[in-house]
Amino acid sequence: MNDVIRTMMAHRSIRKFQDRPVMEETVGDTVAAAQCASTSNFVQAYTIIRVTDQEKRRVLAELAGNQTWVEECPLFLVFCADLNRLDRACTKLGKEMVRGYTEQFIVATVDAALIAQNTMLAAESMGLGGVYIGGIRNDPQTVCDLLHIPDGVYPVFGMCLGYPDHDPEVKPRLPLGVVLKEDGYTGDGDEALIGIYDDVTSDYYKRRTSNKKDDSWSQQVSELVSRVSRPHMRAFLRGKGFAMK
Amino acid sequence: MNDVIRTMMAHRSIRKFQDRPVMEETVGDTVAAAQCASTSNFVQAYTIIRVTDQEKRRVLAELAGNQTWVEECPLFLVFCADLNRLDRACTKLGKEMVRGYTEQFIVATVDAALIAQNTMLAAESMGLGGVYIGGIRNDPQTVCDLLHIPDGVYPVFGMCLGYPDHDPEVKPRLPLGVVLKEDGYTGDGDEALIGIYDDVTSDYYKRRTSNKKDDSWSQQVSELVSRVSRPHMRAFLRGKGFAMK
Repeated sequence: MNDVIRTMMAHRSIRKFQDRPVMEETVGDTVAAAQCASTSNFVQAYTIIRVTDQEKRRVLAELAGNQTWVEECPLFLVFCADLNRLDRACTKLGKEMVRGYTEQFIVATVDAALIAQNTMLAAESMGLGGVYIGGIRNDPQTVCDLLHIPDGVYPVFGMCLGYPDHDPEVKPRLPLGVVLKEDGYTGDGDEALIGIYDDVTSDYYKRRTSNKKDDSWSQQVSELVSRVSRPHMRAFLRGKGFAMK
Repeated sequence: MNDVIRTMMAHRSIRKFQDRPVMEETVGDTVAAAQCASTSNFVQAYTIIRVTDQEKRRVLAELAGNQTWVEECPLFLVFCADLNRLDRACTKLGKEMVRGYTEQFIVATVDAALIAQNTMLAAESMGLGGVYIGGIRNDPQTVCDLLHIPDGVYPVFGMCLGYPDHDPEVKPRLPLGVVLKEDGYTGDGDEALIGIYDDVTSDYYKRRTSNKKDDSWSQQVSELVSRVSRPHMRAFLRGKGFAMK
């Protein structure tokens, strides 16, 4: 096993951080390495906003569902899908950008996710740990107001980073056979494998909570997706120029 | 510089592959490591379809815009955003999944992108190289027909992997100051930095093509985004159960 695989397999979300700053050089190295991620047709349709202002942090932590680690972590980044920069490139060269297509939304969202995953892994390789904060989509308009995010740009998620001050167990993932199929999608065989996995995740939660949490993957996700989540996203995105044509 | 950073910074798209198979163990190790990527609320809303059937490969290569490497590479993966598995988890537990919200589309698309970037990097760490194939979105319905992709699932992109048989130069990325902002989004200062970057990319293309290609980042992306790209995505996605409410 090489260091890349080892770093990946050691990933777990970190929400408690040592009172130790992340040096500027580390931030720069992390993001510069992360930028080497693939990007659709080289567009690099993302922008990362680092939030240092404590009052902004406080608001973000609260709107993300009182995730105090957003306020407390040494380094907080907001990953944005960004079509605005491309629009500026068009203006500069006397061209007019086509806007509002779903395809562009996918391109920018994927681009932001690819650089984010590289950022997480690069940071982890330097001894940091962190957690994605999808919770900023609870109130994306306030995030935009707070961070002056213009038309054609939207905050996809945040990321807390810093030196870990706890050491949670790695969370077991779905069996390979469930997520990797050959020559066609099929759910055949999934039920048995997911049944076993439910036992594995149930044990994981029991162990982690001294038997207080009795849950399994199927229970947890079915609970989650049987409730409406962030129904405002459509209207919010339309307001930011993502018409989803 | 550690091995993770080094592997990231060495990334370039590989489109020519040695006639050397990727061992099953390598495929399994790659995907298993990639699965350790973060996933929104642990939903793991992705499925990877490995395509081995040569006739399916031929069709995919053609619809992706005659990208012959899709047919030729030792390992071709299609990364799907998958809500169908979550729907099955609900059915199993007598719950009803809420469907059709844009938020769910974002969650599944981001989840697929995060595991894909880990897959690329894990593969690269083991000596492989590859390229993302967004071109499968040229005709996503045919991809779905070919790979029996059901309701609630869509193919986000493909990925060619194999042992490199060429050694392209690493492509320079946008300056850090353009993509990393502090406490707020601003385009101030971007123009000068992008001007320098346009010279850098122009030199890169000249060097790579023996002065035949005179292009820059601004020229290239403005050309690209001033044309409509894949206007069918909205209707296609609606047909697959992504109503984008």
